[in-house]
Parts: sequence; C-alpha cells; structure tokens
Amino acid sequence: MALLIKNGKIITAEQSYQADLLIEAEKIVQIGKDIKAPEAEIIDAAGKYILPGAIDAHVHMQMPFGGTVSADDYAAGTKAAACGGVTSIIDFVTQAAGETLVDSLKRKEAACIPQAHIDYGFHVCITKMAENTVAEMKELVAYGVPTFKVFTAYKSSGLMIEDGDLVEVMQAAKEIGARISVHAENGSIIDNRVAKFLAAGKTSAWYHYLSRPEFVEEEATLRVINLAKSLDVPVYIVHLASQEGVKAVNRARNEGYEIYAETCPQYLHFTKDVYKQDNGKDFVCSPPIKGQASQDELWRGIERGDISVLATDHCPFTAEEKEWGKDDFSKIPNGCMGVENIYPYMLDKANQGQLTFNKVVELCASNPAKLFGCSDQKGAIAPGYDADIVIYDPEQEFTVTADKMHSNLNYTIWEGLELSGYPVTTISRGEIVYNNGEFLAEPGRGKFIARSLEA
Amino acid sequence: MALLIKNGKIITAEQSYQADLLIEAEKIVQIGKDIKAPEAEIIDAAGKYILPGAIDAHVHMQMPFGGTVSADDYAAGTKAAACGGVTSIIDFVTQAAGETLVDSLKRKEAACIPQAHIDYGFHVCITKMAENTVAEMKELVAYGVPTFKVFTAYKSSGLMIEDGDLVEVMQAAKEIGARISVHAENGSIIDNRVAKFLAAGKTSAWYHYLSRPEFVEEEATLRVINLAKSLDVPVYIVHLASQEGVKAVNRARNEGYEIYAETCPQYLHFTKDVYKQDNGKDFVCSPPIKGQASQDELWRGIERGDISVLATDHCPFTAEEKEWGKDDFSKIPNGCMGVENIYPYMLDKANQGQLTFNKVVELCASNPAKLFGCSDQKGAIAPGYDADIVIYDPEQEFTVTADKMHSNLNYTIWEGLELSGYPVTTISRGEIVYNNGEFLAEPGRGKFIARSLEA
Amino acid sequence: MALLIKNGKIITAEQSYQADLLIEAEKIVQIGKDIKAPEAEIIDAAGKYILPGAIDAHVHMQMPFGGTVSADDYAAGTKAAACGGVTSIIDFVTQAAGETLVDSLKRKEAACIPQAHIDYGFHVCITKMAENTVAEMKELVAYGVPTFKVFTAYKSSGLMIEDGDLVEVMQAAKEIGARISVHAENGSIIDNRVAKFLAAGKTSAWYHYLSRPEFVEEEATLRVINLAKSLDVPVYIVHLASQEGVKAVNRARNEGYEIYAETCPQYLHFTKDVYKQDNGKDFVCSPPIKGQASQDELWRGIERGDISVLATDHCPFTAEEKEWGKDDFSKIPNGCMGVENIYPYMLDKANQGQLTFNKVVELCASNPAKLFGCSDQKGAIAPGYDADIVIYDPEQEFTVTADKMHSNLNYTIWEGLELSGYPVTTISRGEIVYNNGEFLAEPGRGKFIARSLEA
Amino acid sequence: MALLIKNGKIITAEQSYQADLLIEAEKIVQIGKDIKAPEAEIIDAAGKYILPGAIDAHVHMQMPFGGTVSADDYAAGTKAAACGGVTSIIDFVTQAAGETLVDSLKRKEAACIPQAHIDYGFHVCITKMAENTVAEMKELVAYGVPTFKVFTAYKSSGLMIEDGDLVEVMQAAKEIGARISVHAENGSIIDNRVAKFLAAGKTSAWYHYLSRPEFVEEEATLRVINLAKSLDVPVYIVHLASQEGVKAVNRARNEGYEIYAETCPQYLHFTKDVYKQDNGKDFVCSPPIKGQASQDELWRGIERGDISVLATDHCPFTAEEKEWGKDDFSKIPNGCMGVENIYPYMLDKANQGQLTFNKVVELCASNPAKLFGCSDQKGAIAPGYDADIVIYDPEQEFTVTADKMHSNLNYTIWEGLELSGYPVTTISRGEIVYNNGEFLAEPGRGKFIARSLEA
Repeated sequence: MALLIKNGKIITAEQSYQADLLIEAEKIVQIGKDIKAPEAEIIDAAGKYILPGAIDAHVHMQMPFGGTVSADDYAAGTKAAACGGVTSIIDFVTQAAGETLVDSLKRKEAACIPQAHIDYGFHVCITKMAENTVAEMKELVAYGVPTFKVFTAYKSSGLMIEDGDLVEVMQAAKEIGARISVHAENGSIIDNRVAKFLAAGKTSAWYHYLSRPEFVEEEATLRVINLAKSLDVPVYIVHLASQEGVKAVNRARNEGYEIYAETCPQYLHFTKDVYKQDNGKDFVCSPPIKGQASQDELWRGIERGDISVLATDHCPFTAEEKEWGKDDFSKIPNGCMGVENIYPYMLDKANQGQLTFNKVVELCASNPAKLFGCSDQKGAIAPGYDADIVIYDPEQEFTVTADKMHSNLNYTIWEGLELSGYPVTTISRGEIVYNNGEFLAEPGRGKFIARSLEA
Repeated sequence: MALLIKNGKIITAEQSYQADLLIEAEKIVQIGKDIKAPEAEIIDAAGKYILPGAIDAHVHMQMPFGGTVSADDYAAGTKAAACGGVTSIIDFVTQAAGETLVDSLKRKEAACIPQAHIDYGFHVCITKMAENTVAEMKELVAYGVPTFKVFTAYKSSGLMIEDGDLVEVMQAAKEIGARISVHAENGSIIDNRVAKFLAAGKTSAWYHYLSRPEFVEEEATLRVINLAKSLDVPVYIVHLASQEGVKAVNRARNEGYEIYAETCPQYLHFTKDVYKQDNGKDFVCSPPIKGQASQDELWRGIERGDISVLATDHCPFTAEEKEWGKDDFSKIPNGCMGVENIYPYMLDKANQGQLTFNKVVELCASNPAKLFGCSDQKGAIAPGYDADIVIYDPEQEFTVTADKMHSNLNYTIWEGLELSGYPVTTISRGEIVYNNGEFLAEPGRGKFIARSLEA
Repeated sequence: MALLIKNGKIITAEQSYQADLLIEAEKIVQIGKDIKAPEAEIIDAAGKYILPGAIDAHVHMQMPFGGTVSADDYAAGTKAAACGGVTSIIDFVTQAAGETLVDSLKRKEAACIPQAHIDYGFHVCITKMAENTVAEMKELVAYGVPTFKVFTAYKSSGLMIEDGDLVEVMQAAKEIGARISVHAENGSIIDNRVAKFLAAGKTSAWYHYLSRPEFVEEEATLRVINLAKSLDVPVYIVHLASQEGVKAVNRARNEGYEIYAETCPQYLHFTKDVYKQDNGKDFVCSPPIKGQASQDELWRGIERGDISVLATDHCPFTAEEKEWGKDDFSKIPNGCMGVENIYPYMLDKANQGQLTFNKVVELCASNPAKLFGCSDQKGAIAPGYDADIVIYDPEQEFTVTADKMHSNLNYTIWEGLELSGYPVTTISRGEIVYNNGEFLAEPGRGKFIARSLEA
Repeated sequence: MALLIKNGKIITAEQSYQADLLIEAEKIVQIGKDIKAPEAEIIDAAGKYILPGAIDAHVHMQMPFGGTVSADDYAAGTKAAACGGVTSIIDFVTQAAGETLVDSLKRKEAACIPQAHIDYGFHVCITKMAENTVAEMKELVAYGVPTFKVFTAYKSSGLMIEDGDLVEVMQAAKEIGARISVHAENGSIIDNRVAKFLAAGKTSAWYHYLSRPEFVEEEATLRVINLAKSLDVPVYIVHLASQEGVKAVNRARNEGYEIYAETCPQYLHFTKDVYKQDNGKDFVCSPPIKGQASQDELWRGIERGDISVLATDHCPFTAEEKEWGKDDFSKIPNGCMGVENIYPYMLDKANQGQLTFNKVVELCASNPAKLFGCSDQKGAIAPGYDADIVIYDPEQEFTVTADKMHSNLNYTIWEGLELSGYPVTTISRGEIVYNNGEFLAEPGRGKFIARSLEA
C-alpha cells in the first residue's frame, strides 16, 4: 500500500528542505511539493524531520563469546534496532573449527532469516590465510559479502591474525573487490598486561582499561595504517577510540590514502572513569573507553571528516553474565548495547547544534551505505531507493531507561540519558515497523542485503 | 508553464539517480518515478544528466581596466554564461573616486538590470578602511550583498589594501555577517620585479609570468591565511593558482579554520608555458598561470577538498586591446574568458572519470551557493528550489571554437578544446534559455539574487 | 704577560673537562694537565668553570631613538658587558639622511673607538634599495662588516623596508657573501592598532603590548621565513618572541633551510603581565614581551635547537625618558637593559639543571661567533683563539640590584633576580678586565672585529 | 713513553684548529701551541688532521650464524678495526640455551680478552622477558654493560621478541639506567614473503631484498618509535636503512623524544641493485640495502641530525659460506664487512666537502661515546681523555682492495673504492698500533670498556 508523508522536512547528507514524500511497493517514488496520492495512507509530518533510516554496520547478535552468547538474538536485536531508527544492520560471522568461510556465513544467515525484523548483511572474519582462503573470499564477494574483518588482538582465543597474514589478506581483498576492516589493538601487549595485573591481584574492571590503555590501541592502529599506506590498499578501522589513532587517520587521509574509521557512541559519551564505578563491568568492551583527550579528539575527527561512520558494536550480555568477572576482569564478557541508542544519541547532538543533521545522516546512513556497498538501495532519500525512513520529532523529550528499550536486557549503560528530540516512526521498505513507542513488525520480514563494492 | 523533464539521471553533490523532474512557476516542484503532469511541456532526457545550473562566483562584466572596459557587457556575458550552463553569476563592484560603497553597488546594478539574461549578484571591493566603511558594509549586507573583496596586489593603481586595513576589514566582516574574499599576490614585490624587467628591456608576455611567479602569490596567500587564523575569521582566497598556496589552505582547513579557496579552469588546464607562445598575451591574467607542479597540486587540492569552488575570473579583452602590450607586458589588459567553458570543461573531466559528476556539481553549484549565501534558492535539485537546471548529454562531442562561443570576443584561449559530453539545455527559473545551440532568452529577465550568510 | 688558570673545569659547546689553561700575548696557547709556566701569573680556578666570554650580537649603544639617545654610551655599555662576562658586542648602525652606508659605519665606529673596553663589531641597517646600495654593501663586506639588518616595522619613522626591497636585499646579500637579519613585526598593523588605541584614550604601557601582540610578530616572522625559503637564502630573525614564530623556524630548519633565530633573556623570563605593572614602561621594548605560551615555546625552541643565539637587544633609557610616555605609550622610548645580565642569567639556568652549560656556551658564544663570521678568533676555548675567558663560580650567590650593575642606569628590569652562581673574572684578549666585582680596564682598549662569512 | 704530535690540525666534533698534542701514560695531557717535551717521541703531523679514533658500536666478531661463525675472530676483527682508524668496538652477546645473560657475557668476554688489539665493550641481546631477566640486566649494568639489544625479526630462529616483552624491556631499561637498541624489521611479514618466494622458485639474492623491502623495515621502525614515544623511554634503532624510518625518527626527535638512530656505510653507498649483481650474495645482510630514495633520505637524515651514529654491523662470512645460498637466498649467511672501511669512507666524504670533518667525528666518535656511556674516556680530544687518536692524511690517495684489508676475508664489498685521503696512523691509549700500512700491536692489549649511562 502507498504511504504519503506530508509536510515534513527532508534531511539528506547534503541538504534540508520541506517536501512531501510518496512511498509505493517498498520504494520511495516521489518527492515534491503538495503531492496528491488519493489512495495512499497519509502521515502528517508537520514540524518533523524525514531522515534515511540508520545503517548500523557493526553489531554482534547472538554471538558466542567467553562461554555464553551475546544477549540479543536476531529477533530482539533487530526489534531494538527498528525502535531506535536503525533500518539495516551488518553483523559479523566467525568461523567455527573445521568450517569454511562460506559455510560459516550460511550457518549465521540461517539463524538470522526467520528472526530478522529489518534488513541485514554480514562481514566475515578471517583469522589466518590458509590455502583456500582467497578462493572462499571470492565466493563470498559474489554472494554479496564483500567485506571482511581481522583482529590484531585476542591472541589467546585464536582470533588474532599475524602481520604476515594481515598483509596478504589486505592485498588479496583489493584484488578481488573486497575490503578489510580491522579491530586494532595489540594482542601481545594486552596479554602481558592482563597477566601482570591478575598476578598482582588487580582484578577490578578498572584493570580492564589499564590492560588496554590508549597506547595499546594506538600502536595497532598506526601499524595497520602504515601497512595499508605502504601497500596502497584501503582499510577500515572499526571502533576507533584513541586520540593518536584519530590523528593517524587524519594524516593518512590527507595524504590521499583510503583509510576509513568508525567510532561508536560509547566512545563519544563516556570516559574511562566509568570503569571505576560500581557498574564498571557493564561498560567492559574492547577496545575500552578511553580518557577525555581521546573523546575530544574523536569529536574533532568527526568534524574534520576523519571518521566516516558511526556504528555501535552492539554486543550486550546479561547482568548475570557480566557478574562472572567480579573477581577477575578478564572473565567479564566484552560488549555493550547501543543499537537502539545510536541514532537518537547523534540526532540529539544535532538538535543541540553540536553538528548538523546532515552530518548525522552522512555518518549513520549515507557513508555506511557507500563504504559497505549498498548505496544504490540504502542510505539516501531519493526516488527509487528503498523506503527506509525515520520520522524524527525535534520537540519530543525522551529519557532512556532500560524498561523503555526493546532488547533482551534489563539494564542499559545509557540509563538516564536525556534526549531532546526522538524518532517517532520507523519505516522499513515502506512498512511502518515502529510508531510512537509501539513495535509493529513480524520476524522474518527482514531481507539479506546483497552488497557490492564494484558499483 | 510547467515543464516535465523525463527519464534523465539526476546528479546532485551527494548522489545520482534516475528520476523525472517537474517544474512549475520557476521552481522545482516534484522529483519522482513516472511523474504525470498532463499540462506540462515534456523534455525527454533519456540518456542525459540533469544537473543544477552552475554558479560562477567570479566574473567581471564590462569592467574598466587599463584604459578600456572588459569586452563582455552584461548582455553578452550572461548570454555566454547561459549557453555554457551557468545560471547565476556574481560580479564585482569597484568604487569610483568619491563614491560610497553603496553608490558603487547601485551604479553597477543599474547597468546590469536591463541586460541580464540570468540571475546575478555582486561582491563589493574595499581598498581602504575609511570612517564610514563599516556602516556602508552593513547597509550592503542588509541589501543582500554580504561578500566583499580586497586585493593585496595592484599597489600602483590604488586597489591594494594595507595589512592594517586588511585585518580591520576581516574582523569587521565577521561581526556584521559578511565574508572577505582576497586576491592574494604581493603587490610590492610585483612592482619591483616589473620595474626591473622593463628597465632591462624584458617586455614580452613571458615577463608577465616572471614578474609574479609562484612565490609572489604564495607569500600573500600564506600571509592572508596566517592572519585569518590568528584572528579566527573566515576568508576566501580567489583564483588560487600556486602549489604552496594549496598546501597552506590544506593545513589551515585541517586545523579547523574556515579557509576557503577558489580556482579557475585556466589554472587547471594550462601552464606558464603559454606565455612563451605567440599568443601569450591572450593568457595574461593575474595571478598568471603557474608551472606544472602548481597545476598538479591544484588537482590534488580539489581531490582533498582544499578547494571549495570553481569559478572563472571571466574578464576578456579584445584581441586589439591585448595588442597594446606588444612591447610592454605591463600594458596588456589582464583577464581571460571562461564563463561559457567552465562547466563543460569540468563535466568533461567527470565524463572521463577524473573526478565524479557529484564533485563537479559541488564545486560549481552547491558550494558557491553555500559559501555566498543563496543555498536556499540555488545550487541544488530539490523541491522548492529555483529551477536552474542544465541537461547534459554525455555522448555529445564538442570542439570549442571562437565562432561557436557567445561572448563578444572573436578569439578564445580555449580554441580547439575537445570535449566529450556537452550541455544541451539550460533552464533558468523554469525558462529554457538555451537549447541545442540556440539562445532563447530576452535581456532583462535575470534577477538580482539577494544573498545572506546568516541562514 | 702570561696568565695561567689552574685547576678549573673547561666548558666548551661540546664538552666539559678538568684542565689548566695558559694564555700568552692575548691568545690561548696551552690547555693541559699540570701546565708549568713559571713566568705566568697564576689564577687558581679550583671549583670554578672556565668558559668562553659571551658575544652579545645585538646591542644598541648611544643610539638615537624617539628624540633622545640610548643611555649607555660605548664606555658604559662595554663596561657593563665586561662585568657580566660579555667579551664582544655587535652594535647596529643606522644611516642618517644623505649618508652612505659606509659613511654611517665610519661615523659610528669613530664614536666607539676611544671608548670601547672590549671588542666590537657592527651590523649595518638598510631601509631601502637605492641604486648604489649593493655596491656599498660590498664595500662593507670587504671592510669586515658582512651582516645587515632590515625592519618590517617602524613604518612611520621610515625604517620599514617594503617587501619588494626585502626580497632584493636578501638576494643581493647571498650573492656578495653577506647575511640579512630581520626585525620582524608588521608595521602596518601596528600603526593601525596604535592609532585606534590612542584615539580611544587607551594610553598605558599595557596598550604597547596590545598594539603588537603575538600575531603581529608572527605574521612578519612567517612572511620573512616564507620569502627566505622561496628564494633559498639564509635569514636571521632577531629577538624572536612569539610561539608561532618559533614553530615556523622549526619547520623551516627541519626542511633544511638556513633560518636562524635569536631570542633575548627578557622574553625567556618575563611575560606580558609586566606591562600591567606600575613600572610597565621600563619593560617597553619592541617586539614586546609575549604571553606564557610564547615563553614556553621559546624554551622548547632552545631545547630543540630552533634558536641559535641568545642576545640582549640592550638599549636602555633613563627612568626620566621612560616617563615621557606616561600618557601615551607610543612616546615611551623602546628598549631594555641586559648586556650585564644575559650570561649570568643563562648560566644560572644551567647551574639549576634546566639546560647544560655546554648549551649556554653554544648559544652565547660559539654560535654567534659562527653565524657572524668570527669563529676563527672568538667563541671557543682552544689554542690559538683570542683569550676571551670567563671564570664562573657555581657556588657564588648573587642578587641583581641596580646599584651593583655597571651601566649608566639607576634602575634595572632585573632588580631582585636571584642567581646561584656568578662570573667572578672576565678576561679580554688575555687582560683581566673584571675581577671579583672590580672593573679594571681602560677605555679604548677594545678592538674592531673584522668579520667574514666566507671562511 | 710520551708521544708528541706536532703541527697537525686537531678536529673535534665542534671545531678545527692547529695545535700540538702531547700524550703520556695512555692519556692526552696537553694541547697547545709549540709544546716542548724533550723526552717525547715526536710525530710530525704537518699537513695532517688529528682526529679521535672511531668507536664502532655495532660489530659481530666470531658470531655463530646459520651453521657457521662470522669470519673475523677478535684478533682479526680488531686488527682490521685498528688499521681503519677504529680504536674501540662494541660487540653483541647472544644467550645460548640455558645460559643466563651474565653467563653469556662472560663467555663472550673470555673469548675476546686474549685476542683484542683495541678496546671493546658489549651489548647483550634479550629475546624474552623471563622471571629473572630484570635482575640479570641490573647485574650487567653494574658490570659496565648498560646497553641491550632486541630483535623484531628472526622469528623462526627464536631471536624475535614479542611486542609485550618489548614494552616490558624498554620500561625496565629506563628504570635501571640502561638503554635498548632495536633491530627493526617485521619478522612475521618476512617469514610469509620468504616462504612465498621459495615456494615459487624465486631463490636468487634479489629475493633476499624482495622478502624484506622498505615497508617491512618501516613498519617495525615506526612501531618501535611509537611505543617508545607512548612509554616515554629512549630507544636506539640500529642499522636504519629505510626512508620512512628516517622520517619517523625526525618527527619523534623534533617532538622532543629521545629516539636515536644508527646507519651503516653500506646503506649510504650502495642500493638494492647490488642484489641483482653476480656477487649479490656478498651484500646479503639484514636489513638489506634499500633503493635510491632511501639512500638519499639517510644522507638527509645525517644532515638534519636525525641519525646520531655511524657503525658497521661488521659481520663477514667467507666467500664459500656465502655460496651456500646459491639456490636458496635464505641460506646465505647474513652480514657484510666494514670495520676497516667506515672511518676512511666517511672522512673521504668530508674531504670531498659533502659534510664537515667535525660532523664525521661526531657521528663516528663523540656521539657513540655519549650514547653508549664512555664519553668521559673516549670519543674526544681533550686533556685527560684516552689517547685514542687517528692521524689522517687528506692528500693520500687510496683504493680499497681485499688484499690491502686486514680481516680474514679474501674479498670485500668495498673492492675498488677510491678514497681521497686516508688514515696514516692509529694510536690506541698512547700506543701506535698502526702506522703507514704496518700493523704494530700485540693481541690481548685491548681492554674492556666499563660503560655507564648515569654520568
């Protein structure tokens, strides 16, 4: 059925203007002054903003970690996403022992298909370069998965890629039309520091931070950027959180290299001091949140354009699971929640004048679409595009509390956050999936987004 | 009457997509799939691109210089503009002796009104800070002229502003909602060099270049940028042509300062070697065209985003007037033609893949609209905007020759330029002013663009 | 008569070691362990340091300024110098109307010859490039005066050189084996600011600072450096006092350019706050003392090697003359005292461990000797060199008071300065001119230092 | 017996001057004009230069590598050194399995004592941080060995230190008054590349270079510098050979960090093209010699002061041993000769005017003495210092041929090198050990240099 949004202010990455918007058959079909569409359901958006739905390019739904599984399965995770204005997610796939990369993707996809409330894609993780790896990567690219991830940390759990393989995978990716994302922390230094702290009886969440402070992330970030520059291959740094990392991205981009960086709301809002709080464990994620100087540099990096994408690294664990690390910070499952908060958080900053609404759209929608290969379908408001739309009320006050959130968690690190302005309606391919606090979608309606970097 | 452009590919600064476009009452009113408008005249743009008309923010029509007046009056200049896809120009106003700034603007506007074929605005030049200057600037801002220009060159002709006044005018501009553009060359060094060369009998056009080589422009550009940074005021460098200038803009912008730069097609296409040619005089403009390294850095500056605007400095003189400097390069009237060439030239580069069409739209339309205060009316394709549109045929081959151009000149520095792709139709506020080689507009239809930087 | 300094610790720019030192016929002749010289007068320097005498490359003795003459004539000035461990000075010569450069040098030298207690040289000031200027410069180079000075400030008093002439004089200097020093402040901006403040009734010494704050010096410093780089000529910035100036010197030197900078003790010790004091007028000098950030950067510049020379700009005026500007800061004669304080001040910093004694010797003796062309005679402790020696007692406490100083002034900006360590003996060409508070020399014994940069 | 060197020109890191020099009891005792010493043996050095003997801080004598031992034992190696003007060497000690660091030092020293012709010290290598490592390091510091070395390469042979341990050893060193040197190449990347090339049948010496090209060294160099900056500890990069490495040292030093770099004559003279020659194997060393751009940047780094020390990495193997890698570049023993060539090579460059003699003394003598803790005994010409002296004849022509060299090799990579100027006499602690082509010393006369960084 057709949907006509009237009287709203359309906000794209480039500009803002008053217009009506007509949706038919999952697509945006008209944008204009005084559109007439007698058959269409009408939404009056007077006084409201019409934005592209956000694309959260970094989530971990029902991901095994440290003996459990992240608390949001695809049903809960995509529900929370939709309620926060996110209309697409890109999740991660990690190989199980003996599995090919392609098999790992199919296993993960099978779990997602029946549950997804919104559209989804996957990045596939690579931990070493085996004989068949490049061939499998090619197969995935052809399937619509042109983005891969490696880790320079998590040495003991076997995720860490060696530098020699890192070089090979970056070069291979360039050749086959793929791109590599990197979790950049120095695994060797972390392991030494964790062991030292635990041996010294230093076990609180604060030592999670101290085992991976600024320089531990910065070393790996600078190494990855130096290698990417030397090899002249693009690279994408996930969840960048450290000041020297931002500066290195800035230098490399200014020299003309294709270095991209992502950061997350938790790095923009909190500082390492949260780890000294009683609920420090709730904030345990890797890389950990850094000091004020790093937070400030991240905001400057957003302003300068060093940071291309905002994503969440959404990977929550229950309060009980977080408790496992009470006497040993290394046993706290790593991850925080955010998929329902990212867009409201950033839009609030725009509403307060810290950056423009256009910039938020660029960071949360148009750039992820461009960088991850779906900018012909997603991330923009123009005729022909998927009707993934958020209607935002700049006047609506909202205070985040766990009970108002839609994921499987009974707590949130964002508890008490006061926002001026909030999304009131989320539309996914023309279907209203969220409206004024009410979630309206059926599981399984979300579709796989076949992506390609070649376009 | 309504106009419906069907089947074209719309290209904005941000994205490209297939859609129809409906124009009514001078404005864009609908963008969409399969628009029906039975009353409208239909243009079939299948296979063609729909672009915002270009805004040439730097032209000099019928400007007095060196004992004559630049060859294109407003009638000819705006005709040439329209035929090249330019739908707005911003010209310059220079005070005559005894005139107030406001009077100088009104005198200039009076000459323009009856002749203009397209819309126009003005920058007003300031050569010294008199008692009443700031008050007059305020009056002009209120009138819709919020942009002023100063010169650090042309010492002997009285245009050169002293550094003390430069500082004052930049600070005043910031306070009253205006912005300063600067022609940055070092007038004192030029005068010494010109005198030395003439005294030594070195009189050819080549010595025009040698009297104002790279460092002469670079000194002034760096000085202006340093002052703007120190004072924390924005500044706009017109016709930037030198490599160290580009690098200085890059550094300052990366540090977060609002430094903007414009360059012109002649600096992107030719090198100083043209001054050694028999027709070297035709290329005499100030600043002169520089060496290959500067040209390369200008292109890099475009790629990095250091350069915000492409404009022409259109200021042609007849072949006879150019001949005045046969035995004394300092007598050659300064200026080249370009208003009809800038958009085709840049779009050809896009068509050849050197940069994107979106980037060309940004440089030639959306950025000048934003920087000069008319981005709510001009420079974009969206409902509600002025219907200033160019239809571009990427398949049409075109070779520039003087006789195909529409200005008053019988020669062109662009003679023989081969372009793949060319504008076929220009629409100004909903009226087709140029179509397939035919110019269709009446003089006096162009309107003054009241601009404001406050929006 | 021979002089044997026994048991001291010799300190050069490179190293420190225990040795005896024998002087004969004005020269150092032996350095060694247990030197025997039965005829020689013996000075026991046990526990003391043996340093090269300082070379103060920037002084103004009996200089006409603002309707008076600086308070120290050559007799007083060189007496004060000797008592502070300075064994050579380089003064400045300014052309009088109608005088050639050579005549101006001779006039100045004639005044100095009968009075000088220590050795001296001159820099000659150039305010414009006349027809004969280069020829006169050559004559001075041949005479032993290879160093010239220009001003980018003092516009109204006619000292300011235009940029065109600045370029010419730097290029000419390089060709004839000379070097240019620059007083770098922007004269045009200063004049505007002074006029504005006076017109607004802002007349106290604090407005001396505000009329020439950081950016006014920085603009000129960066301009001069940019020009020197563009022309690939060396340049020496006198009395650098601003942070961005230091950074620009750093960048240029690191790029391989011969950019040299000098600073003065007043810029290292005081901040602009002195101008708010009751005796603010006493500190009025140009460029004025800057803020804390600039002071900090000057010290960093010393550490990094950006600053090659410490000198004083010694140019005191009497308390009565300083009073002339009571109601108009622009009438305060510009200049402070320091020739007797520079070496004790810097050596105290070394004695406190802030920098090494070797570094102080480099800044105050060996570098000025090298940069100004007398490093074959002065600035080092080695056999064959002029026996210009200071014996320094690191244990002697000293508090500066005007009555202990030896210039013609009855006040000092250094009043109350507490120093740990002080020079106890000064030897000029083998003659003890100062010993334990007693001044021992006759006027006229000082000699002209013929210098050459060609060696 | 006393030795009096008359009429020579003494050259120190700071200055050059004509003087006599008297040596007694192994020490320099007098420097002066016309020294009388009737008992002393007189050397007439008229027309010659008197320099400090060189300190080669990077040699490998009789070092086990790849199934053999480097060809020069201590007797041959120190003989060759003395004949080339090197009066001190610092060798490396590598732990054998089961050995403590202290035991490894003692084993190595025992081999050296009976053979050494000149003075010697040791750096001790650390490959991992065991429980007792810091305690052993302290013991070595107390013994006079305050300098340690780690490798980021040689993964398969067990020398490569992990990043976690690298961080620990750098921090520990700072705390106990020691300093870390690093061989910086990325071992993981090298292993991947070597395996790929061998698997592809690419086995010639050229693939030695290709398996460790510029970026492989640059990655590790930048990583080490970043870590040292983050931890604020000093670090010394041995045999720096790559352009980005030099630039990183430059940036870090300019920011005020204590980053030191050494390079070797082979990197200054040859380029990677040697590996394409028939005798490419002779040049196989690690890191390999790089391209012309790197060579050029090394020279610029010397000029700018980024590179503090010249050393040789002297580690030759016989022609037969080098032949082992005929069909597999990875089997070529790594190392070249140079201890007899470094000082003549660098002094020749000075003699040709490329840099000053003072600068060569700084790089080859005074800086290694300062950085490695023996600047109170070695590396300078001043009373009280060890009489380690080279007399250099700037007029003597010399062509290097293997048969004129004094090591155990019958070939040299320096064959045919033509030098203008050559050392004619080497004096070690007052004893003439080399004179006009004749080697004069007895083995075992060399002494251990107890060093300390605390002075």
